[in-house]
Amino acid sequence: MTLSDIVAHVKNYDNIAILPHVQADGDAWGSCLALGIALKKLNKRVTVIGEEKIPYIYEFLPQLEMIAYNGHEDKVFDLVISLDTGDMGRVGNRSNVFETTQNTVNIDHHSTNTGFAKYNYLDVDAAATGEIVYEIINILNVEVDADIATCLYVAIATDTGCFKFSNTTFKTHAIASDLVKRGVNVAAVSQRVFDSTTKEKVRLIGRAINTLELLEDGRLAFISITNDMLIAAGAKEEDCDGIVNIGRNIEGVESSVVIREKSAGEYKVNLRSKSYVDVGRVAFKFGGGGHKMAAGCTIKGDLESVRKSLHDELKRLL
Amino acid sequence: MTLSDIVAHVKNYDNIAILPHVQADGDAWGSCLALGIALKKLNKRVTVIGEEKIPYIYEFLPQLEMIAYNGHEDKVFDLVISLDTGDMGRVGNRSNVFETTQNTVNIDHHSTNTGFAKYNYLDVDAAATGEIVYEIINILNVEVDADIATCLYVAIATDTGCFKFSNTTFKTHAIASDLVKRGVNVAAVSQRVFDSTTKEKVRLIGRAINTLELLEDGRLAFISITNDMLIAAGAKEEDCDGIVNIGRNIEGVESSVVIREKSAGEYKVNLRSKSYVDVGRVAFKFGGGGHKMAAGCTIKGDLESVRKSLHDELKRLL
Repeated sequence: MTLSDIVAHVKNYDNIAILPHVQADGDAWGSCLALGIALKKLNKRVTVIGEEKIPYIYEFLPQLEMIAYNGHEDKVFDLVISLDTGDMGRVGNRSNVFETTQNTVNIDHHSTNTGFAKYNYLDVDAAATGEIVYEIINILNVEVDADIATCLYVAIATDTGCFKFSNTTFKTHAIASDLVKRGVNVAAVSQRVFDSTTKEKVRLIGRAINTLELLEDGRLAFISITNDMLIAAGAKEEDCDGIVNIGRNIEGVESSVVIREKSAGEYKVNLRSKSYVDVGRVAFKFGGGGHKMAAGCTIKGDLESVRKSLHDELKRLL
Repeated sequence: MTLSDIVAHVKNYDNIAILPHVQADGDAWGSCLALGIALKKLNKRVTVIGEEKIPYIYEFLPQLEMIAYNGHEDKVFDLVISLDTGDMGRVGNRSNVFETTQNTVNIDHHSTNTGFAKYNYLDVDAAATGEIVYEIINILNVEVDADIATCLYVAIATDTGCFKFSNTTFKTHAIASDLVKRGVNVAAVSQRVFDSTTKEKVRLIGRAINTLELLEDGRLAFISITNDMLIAAGAKEEDCDGIVNIGRNIEGVESSVVIREKSAGEYKVNLRSKSYVDVGRVAFKFGGGGHKMAAGCTIKGDLESVRKSLHDELKRLL
């Protein structure tokens, strides 16, 4: 099905639900809100149904009153559209909405998409679902105003790591150019989305860095995070996200490991590599999984034995 | 003088020197190399004359053999072009090249540019000098190949903080789109330029975070860096750059201060604010200067008294 076919189909319905995936990120929220605003301009009734509350960093996005987190269970929609969602598992608790609505549409850019809806559109070359929604809004012939532009900018900027990841194409920047022209406050949005942090996370990073060890001539970086460190910093588990990149970004480091205490005798492990080590295979050996450059697993034991097992495995690959 | 006039002028000469400013950044190096490569394609002899060695993060840029750091003193050039350089002070030790060359061109985007050359072109709306050089290369009718594209991409991406600063315009993204199309390896360049760091800098950051204090209901952040901390981390003075943003990026913080020991009884102070505090005025009170959002000064005294003076001054503005 072409995107024009999908759009022609969507235009037939009036009471529309739009679903981001569970643990929705900037692309999911930005895409859903942008499409919602555009459809409302065509006098559709739109409900964006979220699984979890929108995170603080996206709370500045416009027209959040479109979002429902509950109370939608008994509602009947003419059409439901899932965005940026690879499979039904990622629809989460909102699967009833999907199952009770006759007309379902799935629009995504993940290569693993299972085509779980009645009408499916997949573009794996799109850096973000936001790029596809930008096209949809153009096909709908709705003017991209500053609200829509801001939502799409957040969608595209977050899924490309602020235009730094390898999925960034000339099309990504061409769309960003148009969005900026239409009124995105680039500095304010970027500060909020990319550069805002909490004192707890900063304090956790300080403590985590204190544990940094560089082994194998500086090619291997280890950081450990205990529950005591989390408590002392007042930090939450999600504050551990991204700490593995601190090791990875050091000159000369090929593989970076963060070992995080999950419970007594159980450690969650994040693995990253820069160019040649396949950390996905290492994680697989310990019952986990992932990709060549980014993987994870859970290992039982004490901190020292977990560290030693990972060190032994990784040093053979360096 | 229009840019076309400048370009017509440049075309008349064969032996050309191009100068970045002292302590050249990504925009200065990228712009000089891009223009150098383009002029070489027109069979000009080109020497890019640097004041200091090109930093590690830019060492992957193409055709560095064009750069001379010395040995150029006795050479005679037909034309010298300074790029991204606000005044003669920023020409530094290479002022003799500027003084002994009859035809001098100054191309820049800083509003403070003093127009110190025979021919001057200033575009304060350009996010980076790289944007102006992109236009020049188009006027020269030289094809933007992958080498030129990579240099210009680095110029533009660095001066916009990877498309995050308020100087980023629709034109910035439109140019980036064209550059990416012509063969920039976005992920590799971004990793090297924005995300690579050293173990010494990481260790310094860890120690700096350990000193983080939040005052005035979390609106004011203080970090102190002593010489002992630098030595313990094996870090250099330049590794302190950017640490002031750690405090600034914390939710709720309006003003962030880093106090760094310069010598016994003398402290260098970096100040940042997020929205309403004018730290430039604070720095000015202590004999320093800067802008509303970013400023600096040097204060004599012991660490505790320096901290107290700054605290007293800042809390009245919060």
